[in-house]
Amino acid sequence: MKAAIIGGTGYGAIELIRLIQNHPHLEIGTVVSNSQSGTNFSDSYPHLSNIVNISLEKFDAEEISKQNDIVFLATPSGVSSKLVPELIDKGIKVIDLSGDFRLRSQNEYETWYKHTAPAEEYLSKAVYGLSEIYPEKIKEADLIANPGCYPTATTLGLLPILKANLADKKSIIIDAKSGVSGAGRGLSLTSHFAEINENIKAYKLGAHQHIPEIEQVLKDETGSLITVSFSTHLVPMNRGIMITAYVNLTGNISTSEVNELYREFYENQPFVRVRPIGIYPATKEVQGSNYCDIGLHVDPRTNRLTIVSVIDNLVKGAAGQAIQNVNIMNNWDVTTGLDSIPMYP
Amino acid sequence: MKAAIIGGTGYGAIELIRLIQNHPHLEIGTVVSNSQSGTNFSDSYPHLSNIVNISLEKFDAEEISKQNDIVFLATPSGVSSKLVPELIDKGIKVIDLSGDFRLRSQNEYETWYKHTAPAEEYLSKAVYGLSEIYPEKIKEADLIANPGCYPTATTLGLLPILKANLADKKSIIIDAKSGVSGAGRGLSLTSHFAEINENIKAYKLGAHQHIPEIEQVLKDETGSLITVSFSTHLVPMNRGIMITAYVNLTGNISTSEVNELYREFYENQPFVRVRPIGIYPATKEVQGSNYCDIGLHVDPRTNRLTIVSVIDNLVKGAAGQAIQNVNIMNNWDVTTGLDSIPMYP
Amino acid sequence: MKAAIIGGTGYGAIELIRLIQNHPHLEIGTVVSNSQSGTNFSDSYPHLSNIVNISLEKFDAEEISKQNDIVFLATPSGVSSKLVPELIDKGIKVIDLSGDFRLRSQNEYETWYKHTAPAEEYLSKAVYGLSEIYPEKIKEADLIANPGCYPTATTLGLLPILKANLADKKSIIIDAKSGVSGAGRGLSLTSHFAEINENIKAYKLGAHQHIPEIEQVLKDETGSLITVSFSTHLVPMNRGIMITAYVNLTGNISTSEVNELYREFYENQPFVRVRPIGIYPATKEVQGSNYCDIGLHVDPRTNRLTIVSVIDNLVKGAAGQAIQNVNIMNNWDVTTGLDSIPMYP
Amino acid sequence: MKAAIIGGTGYGAIELIRLIQNHPHLEIGTVVSNSQSGTNFSDSYPHLSNIVNISLEKFDAEEISKQNDIVFLATPSGVSSKLVPELIDKGIKVIDLSGDFRLRSQNEYETWYKHTAPAEEYLSKAVYGLSEIYPEKIKEADLIANPGCYPTATTLGLLPILKANLADKKSIIIDAKSGVSGAGRGLSLTSHFAEINENIKAYKLGAHQHIPEIEQVLKDETGSLITVSFSTHLVPMNRGIMITAYVNLTGNISTSEVNELYREFYENQPFVRVRPIGIYPATKEVQGSNYCDIGLHVDPRTNRLTIVSVIDNLVKGAAGQAIQNVNIMNNWDVTTGLDSIPMYP
Repeated sequence: MKAAIIGGTGYGAIELIRLIQNHPHLEIGTVVSNSQSGTNFSDSYPHLSNIVNISLEKFDAEEISKQNDIVFLATPSGVSSKLVPELIDKGIKVIDLSGDFRLRSQNEYETWYKHTAPAEEYLSKAVYGLSEIYPEKIKEADLIANPGCYPTATTLGLLPILKANLADKKSIIIDAKSGVSGAGRGLSLTSHFAEINENIKAYKLGAHQHIPEIEQVLKDETGSLITVSFSTHLVPMNRGIMITAYVNLTGNISTSEVNELYREFYENQPFVRVRPIGIYPATKEVQGSNYCDIGLHVDPRTNRLTIVSVIDNLVKGAAGQAIQNVNIMNNWDVTTGLDSIPMYP
Repeated sequence: MKAAIIGGTGYGAIELIRLIQNHPHLEIGTVVSNSQSGTNFSDSYPHLSNIVNISLEKFDAEEISKQNDIVFLATPSGVSSKLVPELIDKGIKVIDLSGDFRLRSQNEYETWYKHTAPAEEYLSKAVYGLSEIYPEKIKEADLIANPGCYPTATTLGLLPILKANLADKKSIIIDAKSGVSGAGRGLSLTSHFAEINENIKAYKLGAHQHIPEIEQVLKDETGSLITVSFSTHLVPMNRGIMITAYVNLTGNISTSEVNELYREFYENQPFVRVRPIGIYPATKEVQGSNYCDIGLHVDPRTNRLTIVSVIDNLVKGAAGQAIQNVNIMNNWDVTTGLDSIPMYP
Repeated sequence: MKAAIIGGTGYGAIELIRLIQNHPHLEIGTVVSNSQSGTNFSDSYPHLSNIVNISLEKFDAEEISKQNDIVFLATPSGVSSKLVPELIDKGIKVIDLSGDFRLRSQNEYETWYKHTAPAEEYLSKAVYGLSEIYPEKIKEADLIANPGCYPTATTLGLLPILKANLADKKSIIIDAKSGVSGAGRGLSLTSHFAEINENIKAYKLGAHQHIPEIEQVLKDETGSLITVSFSTHLVPMNRGIMITAYVNLTGNISTSEVNELYREFYENQPFVRVRPIGIYPATKEVQGSNYCDIGLHVDPRTNRLTIVSVIDNLVKGAAGQAIQNVNIMNNWDVTTGLDSIPMYP
Repeated sequence: MKAAIIGGTGYGAIELIRLIQNHPHLEIGTVVSNSQSGTNFSDSYPHLSNIVNISLEKFDAEEISKQNDIVFLATPSGVSSKLVPELIDKGIKVIDLSGDFRLRSQNEYETWYKHTAPAEEYLSKAVYGLSEIYPEKIKEADLIANPGCYPTATTLGLLPILKANLADKKSIIIDAKSGVSGAGRGLSLTSHFAEINENIKAYKLGAHQHIPEIEQVLKDETGSLITVSFSTHLVPMNRGIMITAYVNLTGNISTSEVNELYREFYENQPFVRVRPIGIYPATKEVQGSNYCDIGLHVDPRTNRLTIVSVIDNLVKGAAGQAIQNVNIMNNWDVTTGLDSIPMYP
């Protein structure tokens, strides 16, 4: 199958290319970058020299849908919403890595993203691609809204305890830490090396556009309106997200029981690994891979559960989960092309 | 005044030396390192060449008290408890940077530190040296238990809202992030470069020995038994601690009112800076300095206050606060020797 | 084919396991770690959880050679020399990643390594596994001395100009920079995070044990005794080696002619990439991959050639080249299992 | 004395402010930033909150010279050349931290800097401010061309051996490594965190504008035209420059004799420290300070001297040397305001 990638010079696209190259059933078709069309891909990314010898092209929905079997949009939010309709109308399946089609409510989208929401007609076609939770819907989808990096780590960390109805739903606090690649390749002072190296920085407290996305999943899965506290922090590293979530427990349950609960919940999920009691995951342990690793601790002093959940933001938080969704859509084994070992150290 | 430093080759001692050198009324007297006595200081630390030309000495309470006016202990916990009595008995004032004399309860100490507590007689002499909160007691003290790095950032961040009686005391969650220098110069796999670089690591969830220290201060200042959730994370940088604390508010109060409350609380405290609304501090903004910078956000969706508090763990979290306490003890201006600008970037 | 790995808990072994997992014709057999035998591999390395479920074993040449088809030694120098004879005598092929069998002269070995050299009998069996240069000998070898990380980057960078007889052989200077993983997982102050983060450190000037290895290759390939200046520097990153080599040219030759010369020299070598004129490689561009990327600049002011050569020290500088050699030994395509795209950023 | 700073929001200016704050005879007067005039300084740099409460102003030579006693220009090259004449004409002394007045030849300037050189009239007034070498001229100067970061580390490292006439002047090779703050606060892909973190990058080989500056000093001090090879590398850290220089020796001289030669050369220079034999400096050992630390090694195999010279690029390589020059100009002790201990770790 040939895959087109739109938004070809961002980190999301680069990671898609790395993963597609490793995938037995996918190959790179068209790569679109309006800003750099006509140039060779390896001019922007010398690490692709001798591997991906492709010219970047301008966006042309007609050509793309003729020459490819699937399209990945690795475009910024606000751009995907404009490109998706044309592509969908040509009958090609689309995986959108931006936030544009994740929120079902146009209102919510416009409140948090501060620009115009996609048309209702296309929003309603979108399936939220949290692979472990919605495989059946993903299988049938024409348009996948690929989850955000923070929401992936967060919802995989929270759902088992919430669905077991053991958590006080008003108590949920998520303290998120991210590597800098999550901010993309666009230049900004907060991604300027000397500013963020040797530094931790809190940003967008209570204001991150991933908040409504998390709350939408939690509501879908529990039936309750859940409002979370969500704080984001930039950490001086390239890849990796860790969320530390805090939940008040409603009954008496030990760390070992919670651990068992999580292991059962993810029993058939090859990409979610639950650490043994007393061991917490570190982001490096999933570097370059599609794993989400989870550690759990119940503090008997407060009867509060602490959940540590880590992913590689560019893999399970973006390109990897996109490939996982393609695997599901095609009835391929879910690990196809995604079974490489994390790069350590 | 001559200052002796015991534990001379750890990072705490090195930072004391940097600060003392900058202090108009202090000078370095004896520096003790049992493991490296007899060698020149700059053999272990070439950055001190041509500046501090001193031989490291063996511990000798008699000599130390004769030749110095004050003693800083930058020794590990479990060591200070053995050295303090002898020094105190010689009549010299002692600032202990370890955790040995911070907890008033021997039981608590032994529960969390896992070794024998200091004798009651000496524990009772110790004054907890949180400079902004206990200046009157510090002024009279013979033995200062200098606060831990996490407790300093945490209690300075929490006390204004707690003392204003606006917080649900059962709701306190502290998510702490620290640079690696906090783990000291002793070799261990968790401080091994390739293991922690490009990584975030959660550790000692609900089990850190700074928990009872924080709770003791909160109880002393509010009169209530307060149990906190406290999680610690290692971040790939040398210096800096950030704590992000979450507190449920008991009434309706806006970010701007909380901001005003904090500004008033710290009005006469030169080392605590409250950021304007919508701005959160980063650890680099206090690098190398004795500041504690605080940012505040009330989320109206959850009526929860998020507090971001940052310090340099080796300065305000250790050596700087120790000097600040010496300034208080001597009725010198509290900023004496501590007024240099943070090193940025 | 089943592969045994001796020295199973170092970074070299871990990287071998990552690469073997990706290799269609190799699978992990026995993994030996004397220090941690009996424990599960993922106890030391949680990133392997659910992927490599293997118990670490004690060294037993008999068992190893029965149950495996090839052995990788990822042991420190001085250890391999003791284990290789027993393994070779059992008839199993061995790839030694340590320095023990690289120098043909016992004298040289003992001068630079400061311990006893391996027996002549086994030294004489060893083939130096610089894959691009010695494929014919590698094909026939029973014992491969896998090249060091610095010598790989250096010799691949120097050989084209030297073999073209265009360089003043007395003028060669190599300024090498390495990430910290090259120093291994053993604890030491120079790999302690706070010491090497935000730091560059020169070490072992003119004294590194890779010097005679480089000189041996240069002599073998040019017929001349060549003495190089070689300086090593630690850089605050995990992976990557860059060498910047300086060579006086003996005739007039332009950057573009040198570029052409290098491209021809490596025309059929998939893992060596020569950058276009004016572009120099960065270590991140080969991260996680088996590439050696080379940039070239002739300065007409000095008639000196500057060569920039980069590799991932754990891949092309260790485990990757070992796999490349196994591919050669088995007449598999040389890129088998090694064709993944560098991880960027 | 009041000091004006032009170019107030770059890293050079920020470092000047940190050092001036620490200086007993200097105080901050006007701070000019055309792009941000009217705003409060701590809006751009929160680390200055409560310390430097100053509004940024527009450039006005008249006002500046009235209200200040000295002016520091921390402007980019090409800007200083336009501002200096006006200031000098008003009779105020100027320290220019840019490269505009360092090269005496307009031709050379235009060849390397690619824009118009300053007028001859003003060029001829400029004194090159390499403090250790030109104190007498500095004392009399009205306009100081403060040396570049690379030239400072390089010339201090090379001059003793060159002036002793023990070096082959055609053999000089300088391999330079710099932290990223040297590239300033202006946004660019090469300073983008994810691009340079975990990376070393060679750039501007043989083309850096500091080359003619180095060669001008070497010619001035030796009387010979010296052409150097000079390569620059970006290293993932904020502060610090290391140069490793290679020089063929013309006679037989041991490491210990070279060491002695350097110690004598810098005997009365408080900011240059020569390491003992076998010890090489690391950039962290001068972090935040005005030191230049030098290590030396003669390789008897090649009769080549390797010189390792480190500085903090923002201090001795910029703001610190500027202050040192002001001390010289005013007959203050050269260490005034510059005697703080490097920040370690």
